Amino acid sequence: MSGIISYDGTNFSGYQVQPDQRTVQGNLEKVLQRMHKGEFVKVIASGRTDTGVHAVGQVFHFDTPLSIAPDGWKRALNTLLPDDIRLLSIDEVASSFHARYDVSAKEYQYRVLRADEEDVFRRNFTFHYPFALDIDQMRRAANYLIGEHDFTSFCSARTEVVDKTRTIYKLDISESGEELIFSIKGTGFLYNMVRIIVGTLLEIGNGRRSPEDIPDMLLAKDRDVTGKTAPGHGLYLWEVSYEKEE
Amino acid sequence: MSGIISYDGTNFSGYQVQPDQRTVQGNLEKVLQRMHKGEFVKVIASGRTDTGVHAVGQVFHFDTPLSIAPDGWKRALNTLLPDDIRLLSIDEVASSFHARYDVSAKEYQYRVLRADEEDVFRRNFTFHYPFALDIDQMRRAANYLIGEHDFTSFCSARTEVVDKTRTIYKLDISESGEELIFSIKGTGFLYNMVRIIVGTLLEIGNGRRSPEDIPDMLLAKDRDVTGKTAPGHGLYLWEVSYEKEE
Repeated sequence: MSGIISYDGTNFSGYQVQPDQRTVQGNLEKVLQRMHKGEFVKVIASGRTDTGVHAVGQVFHFDTPLSIAPDGWKRALNTLLPDDIRLLSIDEVASSFHARYDVSAKEYQYRVLRADEEDVFRRNFTFHYPFALDIDQMRRAANYLIGEHDFTSFCSARTEVVDKTRTIYKLDISESGEELIFSIKGTGFLYNMVRIIVGTLLEIGNGRRSPEDIPDMLLAKDRDVTGKTAPGHGLYLWEVSYEKEE
Repeated sequence: MSGIISYDGTNFSGYQVQPDQRTVQGNLEKVLQRMHKGEFVKVIASGRTDTGVHAVGQVFHFDTPLSIAPDGWKRALNTLLPDDIRLLSIDEVASSFHARYDVSAKEYQYRVLRADEEDVFRRNFTFHYPFALDIDQMRRAANYLIGEHDFTSFCSARTEVVDKTRTIYKLDISESGEELIFSIKGTGFLYNMVRIIVGTLLEIGNGRRSPEDIPDMLLAKDRDVTGKTAPGHGLYLWEVSYEKEE
C-alpha cells in the first residue's frame, strides 16, 4: 500500500524513528503494528524531514498481508493516528513500488513572515524575518540556481552522499499578504539544501550578498561560502512525484 | 500601564490563573513579578478566555511603581514572555482606567473549517465542520439575535451573573476560502455565549432547526432549547473597545 500524509512538524523530532523521541515514522509504525496484531510493519517514506519541518504531501509505502479496501485503511489509520498526522489518501501499488527509490521529483515550500512583529498564530509555520528584502534581487539570484549543478556549497557539511549533483526545475518566489513563499522543485535535495538556499537568498535580498555571487558559490563547493541555514519550521515537503517524465 | 496581547490559546488552560495550570494570566504575572524584583503584580484583563480560546487583542492593565518607557516595557515583556503570548502594544493610562469595568464593547471571531478532511495546520485554529450548511438561513437566524435581548438561553447554565440582557451590535458571517468566519460584536458576552450562538447557527445552517426558532429560543430563557456549544479552539477574542460611544 502507498499513502500520502500531511503532518504538522511542530511536535515531532522529525520524520525518522529515533529512540525515545516522538517521530512521524514511529507513530505510523506503531499504528500499523497495532492493526497487524503486534507484528512490526516497516514504513518507507520518500525521505526524512527534520525537527519542526512540515509535510503537505509526504509519500510512504508498506507491505501488508491484510486485505482491506483503501477507504477502510484511511478510516482506520486516521482514527488511530495522532491528530497532527492526517492520511490524505492511500492506494494499492505494485509490489515493485518504492517510495524512496522511485521518486522522480520533489517540491518544497518555504514560508517567510515579513512583518515587524512575530505572529503567535504563525510562529511554528513561518520563519519571521523582519528585515528589508529586495525581491527582484532574490529572483535574479534564484535564476542562477535553476538547472543542473553540484550543490556541495548548498548542503550540510555533514552530507554523506558522494554525488552532489542535482537539478532544480523551478525556484519561484511569490508574495501572499505578509508572507514570502519560496516554491522549489527538483530531482532531489541534499541534506538542508532548501534551507541553505532560502537562507542565502534572504541574505542577498537583504543586500549583504549579491545575486552575482551565486555562480562563485556553486563553483567553490564549500559550505562556508553560502548563507545561514533557515530554520526548519518554515519548511514544507509539498509534493513528491513519481512520473518518469517531468 | 495598559497593554494589548495576542495569544495562541492551544497550550494554555485558559486566561485565568489556576493552581498547577499553564495560564496566560499566570505567565503575565510571573514575568511582571520578575521585573518587579519578586514583588507580586496583579494583572486585570478585559475578561477571561477558556482553554484553547485564542486572542488577537486581549487588553489588560496593571499598576507599577517602575518608570519605564512603553518601548522598554514592550521589549522586556516580549523577551520574558513565552512565544505563544506576544505583547502588541503598551501605554500609560490614567490610574482610574480599569481593563474589565471600562469595557464598552467586545468583538469575537469564530472560524469554522468547511472541508471534508481535517487540516493538520488548522486543527487548533478552526472548528472542522464537514457537513452541509445553508449560509443564507444562518444569516437570517443571525439577524434575530442582533439588538438587545435576554440571552439566558445562549449562555452556560452555570452562568452566575443575574442580569443576562446584552446588546449585539453586529453578527456577520463571511466566507474566506474554506473557512466560514463569524464576527460578533456586542456590549459584552455571557459565559459560552459566542460558542452557543455559533453552535446554534450551525444547526440551523445544517437544516436541523429553523431561523424562525430563534425568537422562541430567546423567550424560553432556557439553555436546553439552544444548540451545542461550539469548541473553544475556533474562537478568538478579536478586539476590546473602551470608547463611551459606539
